[in-house]
Amino acid sequence: MTLNLQYEAIGKGFVQQYYALFDDPNQRRNLANMYNVELSFMTFEGVQIQGAPKIMEKIASLTFQKINRIITAVDSQPMFDGGVLINVLGRLQTDEDLPHAYVQTFVLKPIEGSFFVQHDCFRLVLHDTI
Amino acid sequence: MTLNLQYEAIGKGFVQQYYALFDDPNQRRNLANMYNVELSFMTFEGVQIQGAPKIMEKIASLTFQKINRIITAVDSQPMFDGGVLINVLGRLQTDEDLPHAYVQTFVLKPIEGSFFVQHDCFRLVLHDTI
Repeated sequence: MTLNLQYEAIGKGFVQQYYALFDDPNQRRNLANMYNVELSFMTFEGVQIQGAPKIMEKIASLTFQKINRIITAVDSQPMFDGGVLINVLGRLQTDEDLPHAYVQTFVLKPIEGSFFVQHDCFRLVLHDTI
Repeated sequence: MTLNLQYEAIGKGFVQQYYALFDDPNQRRNLANMYNVELSFMTFEGVQIQGAPKIMEKIASLTFQKINRIITAVDSQPMFDGGVLINVLGRLQTDEDLPHAYVQTFVLKPIEGSFFVQHDCFRLVLHDTI
């Protein structure tokens, strides 16, 4: 049991770094470095994907160019393997679409002094669920 | 690495079982059995709590009697320690309040043929974040 007591700073730092890459079409492909080739799971709007190549295929298929993102809350918890559980609540507007609330959960797994994204789960909160 | 391939059934079953207890004021106290005395973390609307006694104190402090709950989505992923990551998106109406969307993340940790809730993170999605 090795709780990482820096979990809050790690969570906030990760979220900032991840979305800086995600929100820039020219840098989005560099997200590949954050996932493991085999050991990363993503659930994107209910669709399950495993491994960096397929995750990056999914991310590359998102065609919007412009993203306005507001982070409402970042809740982090330390995990007993030294990882960090991160829950993000925010608002997202892509191109000229209406803004939507969204939630995204990440589990960071420690590896050689750094982390990779072991779990990633994304959902829009659509207006008719409110 | 022991992925539990039943993760989807486990996630759905857990969510049903957890909210059946939570939503019944007469049974709510039995949620104590789902948390570990020391090893469970909860973040409730940004407030961090550790261990079953304090988590149950928080849950007991919720004074509403009537809950209308609609589950919109349950996304589960298998974890590499045999646990399950569960993300719930739903809508919640307590007593005569307005209904709100909410998100809740659970991490189930395997223990002696069963699971306990190692991580629990709850947030309402308030209208002004939409």
